[in-house]
Amino acid sequence: MENFNFYVPTDIRFGKDRLDELPAVLDQFGKNVLLVYGGGSIKRNGLYQQITDLAQKNGHTLIELSGVEPNPRIETVRKGIELCKENQVDVILAVGGGSTIDCSKAIAAGFYSEEDIWTVIAARKGYTGPALPIVTILTLAATGSEMNAGAVISNLETNQKLGFGGPNMIPKVSFLDPTNTFTVPQNQTAAGSADIFSHLIENYFSISTGADVQDFVSEGLMRTVIKNCPIALENPEDYDARANLMWASSLALNGLTGRGKQGVWSCHPMEHELSAFYDITHGIGLAILTPRWMNYVLSEQTVGKFAQFARNVWGIVEQEEEVAAKKGIQALYDYFVACGIPMTLPEVGIEADKFEEMAQQAVDHSAIAEKAYVPLDAADIVAIYKDCLTESQFI
Amino acid sequence: MENFNFYVPTDIRFGKDRLDELPAVLDQFGKNVLLVYGGGSIKRNGLYQQITDLAQKNGHTLIELSGVEPNPRIETVRKGIELCKENQVDVILAVGGGSTIDCSKAIAAGFYSEEDIWTVIAARKGYTGPALPIVTILTLAATGSEMNAGAVISNLETNQKLGFGGPNMIPKVSFLDPTNTFTVPQNQTAAGSADIFSHLIENYFSISTGADVQDFVSEGLMRTVIKNCPIALENPEDYDARANLMWASSLALNGLTGRGKQGVWSCHPMEHELSAFYDITHGIGLAILTPRWMNYVLSEQTVGKFAQFARNVWGIVEQEEEVAAKKGIQALYDYFVACGIPMTLPEVGIEADKFEEMAQQAVDHSAIAEKAYVPLDAADIVAIYKDCLTESQFI
Repeated sequence: MENFNFYVPTDIRFGKDRLDELPAVLDQFGKNVLLVYGGGSIKRNGLYQQITDLAQKNGHTLIELSGVEPNPRIETVRKGIELCKENQVDVILAVGGGSTIDCSKAIAAGFYSEEDIWTVIAARKGYTGPALPIVTILTLAATGSEMNAGAVISNLETNQKLGFGGPNMIPKVSFLDPTNTFTVPQNQTAAGSADIFSHLIENYFSISTGADVQDFVSEGLMRTVIKNCPIALENPEDYDARANLMWASSLALNGLTGRGKQGVWSCHPMEHELSAFYDITHGIGLAILTPRWMNYVLSEQTVGKFAQFARNVWGIVEQEEEVAAKKGIQALYDYFVACGIPMTLPEVGIEADKFEEMAQQAVDHSAIAEKAYVPLDAADIVAIYKDCLTESQFI
Repeated sequence: MENFNFYVPTDIRFGKDRLDELPAVLDQFGKNVLLVYGGGSIKRNGLYQQITDLAQKNGHTLIELSGVEPNPRIETVRKGIELCKENQVDVILAVGGGSTIDCSKAIAAGFYSEEDIWTVIAARKGYTGPALPIVTILTLAATGSEMNAGAVISNLETNQKLGFGGPNMIPKVSFLDPTNTFTVPQNQTAAGSADIFSHLIENYFSISTGADVQDFVSEGLMRTVIKNCPIALENPEDYDARANLMWASSLALNGLTGRGKQGVWSCHPMEHELSAFYDITHGIGLAILTPRWMNYVLSEQTVGKFAQFARNVWGIVEQEEEVAAKKGIQALYDYFVACGIPMTLPEVGIEADKFEEMAQQAVDHSAIAEKAYVPLDAADIVAIYKDCLTESQFI
């Protein structure tokens, strides 16, 4: 196990009927609140009304930034920073999924940053400066942004989708109410679950060894997703299924499964280019890529870990390592299919014409070619993209 | 899943060769440091020397409270409070295992408490007041006290061993260096691992249902202990084994496996009386009690969860629920035996003469008779104690 720091001071308020705690939470920071949200689903499900009622009753001024994109854009971040400056905002209230929270984090940092925030992001060095306090109300179980210090921002002008983060960007308080995800449609529920799953897989397959805590906890969280996503798809108002997906989303990416292990991720850099170029849903891109990536990097060196994945996550009883490994990859693929996820790139509107360009950017924007579980160059990535053009069978 | 709060703001510094970070950590709080430790093992292994050298070099004044007992006593706590008051202590540095850290927490709270701290503890209402900041250097993987807000203090005059806690009692920073546990002897390594295991089991078998995240994470941490304790017993300087046990100890009792579930524990209340009356090692008492308790509460109602425990934790492949359940209990018992733990009460000097009195106190000091996984009255507890008089065979 590698040395690591673990400091996750987000105050989690998990469960239903807790929004009456919101005014006191906001009061810790001040009265001027930037309310950040996305496409308006919170107006349809009543959450917006509840929040504005509470604000009025408790003397909070809400300044609104709506319309945050599924892959939040730098222009929206800049707009938010302006609003904070104009209105002397004390605290950001992010109501939504990972995109809304990520956008809020970039605003929170950008408010204090002397440089334009895209300059900070593009410098790829993280952000150690101060940030406005962030409170979140999560409405989608997926990215884990509600309990970590990272954010991913897109710049469509430059076709870049880049992650950055810093210690002061972690939300101060996050309200995790599973009922707020009851109205999440099937395709987004599946995509969010694929995102959670991918975070776990990225940390699990790492160049470091000996981190049993991290790996065995990961296996437990993967099994949580495998069990509960289908229940939520079948019955969107199953409270426990939504609760388990929600809490799994936070724990998958708050350091619990990744700290103590070295190296960089594989599927995320490859996927970030797909969504940067085609604006597809992040979780869908990850689901499409992951089984093909697994099959591509399966080798004599990696077969042991893939067999462990098959046995401990999927309960596959199979002595022979390579067969077990392939059965595990197939199980993951079949699971995504069963969740209704489109499992080829053409189904989400992506053909082969930009594979080389995207592959090169994936290499340029990450350390995938040096520090991934199995280092991949642009040619490897093109090969993996190509494997995603048609349906797959691994055994 | 039940509603819960999760707020664990301990800054964990995990890994070897990190003690040079200590002066800056202490400087956050001040220069007058109460150094709390136990029986002197830190003098033998060089840690004491390192700490005093660093303190001298960086202008920290160390006031020492040594000799904290394995079950820390209220008299020692009171002595610590006096030292803090006399020396205007700014921060407590707890160097040791759970006993040392628990003692430090009681001192930290007692420093500010207007009532005598035993009055606070005995009132069984928790402590919401301020506390001195605590920094820990962990030397034993066991109680999880390094990353939670609870403490257990003994009063030998009244034969009471009581837990209490409060939000300000959680350590600010904890140094978790696995090499500091290399010199832990076999019996304490085994007892500490049994303590970790017991925390996981207590949370796992709960009256609440639907908490898959908590349960599946628990299963992963149990498997971590099962794998790594024997390695550490065989080779005390196996870094990864020590690292996995250490990190598992923190995660087993920081809320991760317990929050979102209701009810109270079973084996801890029963064991607390054993150590309150006989001053035995806590983890050994838990190891002796746990399989007998499991067998005693196994029923048509509980068999499903015990079968899950057998399958997911021990990998037992067995269709029939009751057989699977019993095989799981046997596996746990055999595992403790293999770890060299004395598995009967007479082996640790306890005979039947105080069973009734201890059982009654277990009921009086806890809600075991109302809110345990299977509620147990004094007669039930006596029966479980009696099952611990001789070796057991469950299948």
